[in-house]
Amino acid sequence: MSNPRVTGAIRYAQDVELDGMLHARILRSPYPHARIVHIDTSALPDSVVVLTPDDVRELGKYGCQIKDQTVLPLDRARYVGDPVAAVATPTRKQASEALDLIDVEYEELPAVFDAVQATSEGALLVHDQHNISDNDAAYFGIRPQPDTNICHRFRIRYGNIDEGFAHADVIVEETYHTAGAQHAPMEPHASLAHWVDDRLEVYTGTQTPFNLRMELAGIFGLQEHQVRIISPPMGGSFGCKTFVRYEAIAASLARKARRPVKIVLDRSEEWLTLNRHPATIHVKIGARSDGTLVAKQVECRVDTGAYADCGPGVAQKMGFAAPGPYRIPHVWVDAHCIYTNLPPNGAFRGYGAMQSIWASERTMDVLADRLGMDPLALRLKNLLVDGDHYCTGEEMHDVHFAECLQSAAEKVGWTEQRRGKGLCVLMKGMQTPSRASIAVGANDDGTYSVYCATAEMGQGAWLAIRMMAAELLGVAVENVHFPEPDTDIVPYDTRTTSSRSTYMMGRALVEAVRKLKENGELGYGECANTGGLDPDTGQGIASTHWHQGAAAAEIRVDEETGKCDITKLHASIYAGRVVDRPGAELQNEGAMIMGIGTTLFENILFADGQVTNANLSDYNIPAAGDVPDLSYDLIEREGAEIHGLGETALPPIPPAVGNALYSLNIHVTDLPISAEVVLAAIDQRDGTKPQMTGAVEGDRR
Amino acid sequence: MSNPRVTGAIRYAQDVELDGMLHARILRSPYPHARIVHIDTSALPDSVVVLTPDDVRELGKYGCQIKDQTVLPLDRARYVGDPVAAVATPTRKQASEALDLIDVEYEELPAVFDAVQATSEGALLVHDQHNISDNDAAYFGIRPQPDTNICHRFRIRYGNIDEGFAHADVIVEETYHTAGAQHAPMEPHASLAHWVDDRLEVYTGTQTPFNLRMELAGIFGLQEHQVRIISPPMGGSFGCKTFVRYEAIAASLARKARRPVKIVLDRSEEWLTLNRHPATIHVKIGARSDGTLVAKQVECRVDTGAYADCGPGVAQKMGFAAPGPYRIPHVWVDAHCIYTNLPPNGAFRGYGAMQSIWASERTMDVLADRLGMDPLALRLKNLLVDGDHYCTGEEMHDVHFAECLQSAAEKVGWTEQRRGKGLCVLMKGMQTPSRASIAVGANDDGTYSVYCATAEMGQGAWLAIRMMAAELLGVAVENVHFPEPDTDIVPYDTRTTSSRSTYMMGRALVEAVRKLKENGELGYGECANTGGLDPDTGQGIASTHWHQGAAAAEIRVDEETGKCDITKLHASIYAGRVVDRPGAELQNEGAMIMGIGTTLFENILFADGQVTNANLSDYNIPAAGDVPDLSYDLIEREGAEIHGLGETALPPIPPAVGNALYSLNIHVTDLPISAEVVLAAIDQRDGTKPQMTGAVEGDRR
Repeated sequence: MSNPRVTGAIRYAQDVELDGMLHARILRSPYPHARIVHIDTSALPDSVVVLTPDDVRELGKYGCQIKDQTVLPLDRARYVGDPVAAVATPTRKQASEALDLIDVEYEELPAVFDAVQATSEGALLVHDQHNISDNDAAYFGIRPQPDTNICHRFRIRYGNIDEGFAHADVIVEETYHTAGAQHAPMEPHASLAHWVDDRLEVYTGTQTPFNLRMELAGIFGLQEHQVRIISPPMGGSFGCKTFVRYEAIAASLARKARRPVKIVLDRSEEWLTLNRHPATIHVKIGARSDGTLVAKQVECRVDTGAYADCGPGVAQKMGFAAPGPYRIPHVWVDAHCIYTNLPPNGAFRGYGAMQSIWASERTMDVLADRLGMDPLALRLKNLLVDGDHYCTGEEMHDVHFAECLQSAAEKVGWTEQRRGKGLCVLMKGMQTPSRASIAVGANDDGTYSVYCATAEMGQGAWLAIRMMAAELLGVAVENVHFPEPDTDIVPYDTRTTSSRSTYMMGRALVEAVRKLKENGELGYGECANTGGLDPDTGQGIASTHWHQGAAAAEIRVDEETGKCDITKLHASIYAGRVVDRPGAELQNEGAMIMGIGTTLFENILFADGQVTNANLSDYNIPAAGDVPDLSYDLIEREGAEIHGLGETALPPIPPAVGNALYSLNIHVTDLPISAEVVLAAIDQRDGTKPQMTGAVEGDRR
Repeated sequence: MSNPRVTGAIRYAQDVELDGMLHARILRSPYPHARIVHIDTSALPDSVVVLTPDDVRELGKYGCQIKDQTVLPLDRARYVGDPVAAVATPTRKQASEALDLIDVEYEELPAVFDAVQATSEGALLVHDQHNISDNDAAYFGIRPQPDTNICHRFRIRYGNIDEGFAHADVIVEETYHTAGAQHAPMEPHASLAHWVDDRLEVYTGTQTPFNLRMELAGIFGLQEHQVRIISPPMGGSFGCKTFVRYEAIAASLARKARRPVKIVLDRSEEWLTLNRHPATIHVKIGARSDGTLVAKQVECRVDTGAYADCGPGVAQKMGFAAPGPYRIPHVWVDAHCIYTNLPPNGAFRGYGAMQSIWASERTMDVLADRLGMDPLALRLKNLLVDGDHYCTGEEMHDVHFAECLQSAAEKVGWTEQRRGKGLCVLMKGMQTPSRASIAVGANDDGTYSVYCATAEMGQGAWLAIRMMAAELLGVAVENVHFPEPDTDIVPYDTRTTSSRSTYMMGRALVEAVRKLKENGELGYGECANTGGLDPDTGQGIASTHWHQGAAAAEIRVDEETGKCDITKLHASIYAGRVVDRPGAELQNEGAMIMGIGTTLFENILFADGQVTNANLSDYNIPAAGDVPDLSYDLIEREGAEIHGLGETALPPIPPAVGNALYSLNIHVTDLPISAEVVLAAIDQRDGTKPQMTGAVEGDRR
């Protein structure tokens, strides 16, 4: 069976062509923060359609959690790369040339590039106000902090933190930092917009067609049914093709040009579009001398860049992943989402969990060292079990943390030899509340089709859904078709994120197929999960079920060069029930390899707010040669729910490697673990390595 | 084949039962205009769930064209019957009893009951402000007149009206009035709302499920996908089950009760819910002595009651129907939609056209009399033909006015004898812009299903759509199913109004079936018409095609009692292409009979703003004995488009009868033509009958 991704048969959004179509390019701010004084487009030939802030002044604001964006910034650019104008011409080359003819007069403003600085006293404000309507605040539970750069604050308050630490025999305290990262999908962002009378139709690679439909309707003052989103398969996304990216600019240009307009990004523009949130995380944990955890306090500072995007959600998920899969009677978490003058950060595989799991699981090994305990034994002693309540108040069920962790430890021969080895165990939530719906119809030729908004970005969701439908229908998978999602046709789905689709659509499918069988007609099914957390206390339901996993790494360090080689990497992931074995394994491998990138290589570098490595030569994603001896278990249980597998194996990789270094007396707190970081940690050991010498109180950043 | 309407097999909205369901009743204002000082609910048992303005203060406003309504009025009641509180209890009887225990303190305010008075200098304002956001105004083209009761003004400016009249040899000027009317569907309004977590599900008899979904989302601060509307078949609607009626009250009660809540109206409450717009219409028309029309000036004053509802749209359609199907080089129309302290008026079969066609076509006979011409000849001389431009600027195509009119004249033996006979010819527009979409799927058992939001209210739309689908699919109609519309499942449709569904869905079906045949999969098709008129000039596209028809009446008058008997009534309607012959004929008969009610009987009577005939004994709709010798042609043309037939035969009935009276020298200007009206006109003839004696300049109202 030829794979259409390999043969080139897939029609991506960037392949769609419409008659009379124009190609757009974007003029971007060269300054990290600057008032736009004047835009002179008089040198452009009449044939060039140009979009400037004046063209979009009357349009609505957007933003998936905070409406802090306009189609183009109206008064000032807030990061190097902020789109300040756009052109559309018959060819892409003409568009590139036209950009050179636009003269923008800027007045530079001071800028802030660091989330910690951005929250210091007297820091300049990236947004004059947070532009959060009461409605937005109520709907998303957004908690902006007035007159600061903090656009959201999420808290967990569980037990009494002071009392908890008062009962601790040992307290460890550390600060960690994780770098920004680029999703680097092989297919860049591509959107084609055109207007059919007063309706807007958009072909775009997106994980979120229904969110996009709602936002575009709001921007252009349309009703939702006047916007149609068609989302072809994507060549990777990992979180970056979400909500409004360039669709509003393409649609604004198309409206002005009265012709279809396509935008396809250059590779370098991807770094100016959406990246992963860098974070600074301070962890304080207390235990009894027997290793029983009694209190944990975590502060997360999440850099969301110049626009919030889903930063509030990332801060929340970073916050509620921080306590980790442990019974801890007293938990206190503050997570702040902070504006800076850097490119916006948003959803990224591992969504917030990666950052706090790094901090949390590294700290567990420091604590084990202080207690003189085996890190595996410390974890096993404290892991949540069925019926326990997490610090959000929700009850745990179908818990497999110990099983995952023991399996991973075994794979690296933990009991024989612990030097050069590290472990990590994790839990990660799934989007609540959310809703998936699907329709299944019988076709004339005896085959079936599923009508479903789930996005295919290479993760294999369409095949998994077809396989589940085929099994329920009792036909071969070849007899189940999955037409390209089109919001005019497919029923509602929240979005394709948070590893939710196979689980949610799987449940909706059961109902849809049952109805199809009962009535013979198109069967419709839906699955809604409820929940959400109180932003001020963190109490509620974070996740219908939790993604659970563990990883173990074995490494080798060249202490002269600082080079760290991973010699063995294993992940044990609870899968509940595997739908598509090869697909699940590939997903898992992909997450692990992306985890290696996060662990060792990936780091967006800036100079004065300008990305200095916005290309795939200087920004290193893992190559085939970087992949070590890699193995995994996908743990199943008879009769279990399906657990999404898109992300679980990424977050445990960095701590497993970091803890392996720690076993060699190399204590690293920052990601990625570059050779320089390793060498610096080697330099500091002996004299300063805190956990070997006594109480750990210092902030090493 | 047993008819489910006859056997009782249909499940209407009022038949839906849910576990734990409560029954609601509404407490209504006894005053036409009063400040709500205090609502004391302390006498209610704890078991009663009560809704007062304080419960809905934070909810969004609504209104299909102007957001001038809240779920309950927040500060003052604006008509006798305005809901000021509501209760829900396990039985309907308990709810009725509970209403008596609520004590409302009112402060009476002056009220205005007449649209003409309401626009006079210094009239009290029914709404302090029009509450029209710029967005609303822009989207619907609403033109409120500040500091007046005029919530919308629609204009046509075509040619130069002064120049037109300067070239007229004869000018006739008259003022007409049409009464309010009640839709009187056999099934009253019924809605059942319940919340499933944070989703609102509503079973309700509605012609407008997608509008309702949008409005309820706005009211409760939800996204549209969080609202689900299921619209069972209705036992009649005729325009009254549209937009938000009691769904928001039911949903608010259900939210508070945390249980499903159903509201079913008493018969008398129908008169307090929605009626037809009374109108006062002033017509001035000028012609050359050969009968060539040269100028027409019309002013419409449309009483929309206490809330705008779709009054702006009614005013617009009344305005653009006023010139009639004639070539007139100079046209000037002003239509004002006016608030009064009467129950709200809204959509009603014949939507605005009826009122101005009454005025316009009565005036044609007065003009014919002045010119000494045969009214038929005067009309035929001036009728629009293919390629002519209407006064909105749009080009006419597939025109059959003359054919309809001649056919109708012939049926009453016009050429033999004109005394006691009257004619009318009309054009009526269809909703623009609008969009219909439909999906067609093959079922397991070889049958097909259509997924479509078209509402079935007894008009036979579901059967017509099934028949069209069956023909396209080449199967028997029994093999095409039409599941109950559910906004979670069916694709978007603007709404089931303006006789658009068979035409629009018919076109969408062609595409859907073609795709089904091509791909074997669920086929999706849509049909969008564009258009709209500039509210300040009336230029644009009012209708994709025009509904065309004519009627002829023969009457007998008892000059002692004033009783007018219709002895023969004929309508000739252009049908384009008939889909369901028996259904089309029944629709046409129904429209004619409803037209008889409007002509002779129906009138909502008020005393101090209180409806005094809110029951089916005192308010007379036509009974079987009132139906005369009735006939009709449905004119078809090979290859023509389908023309909707829901309304066309209603508006020509009143003028045909009025003109028949006029042929007997009885000049009536007001509807309904009661015996009193006839007697008054007989008293006035000879001395004052204007068209027999000279220039007609006076305003006879």
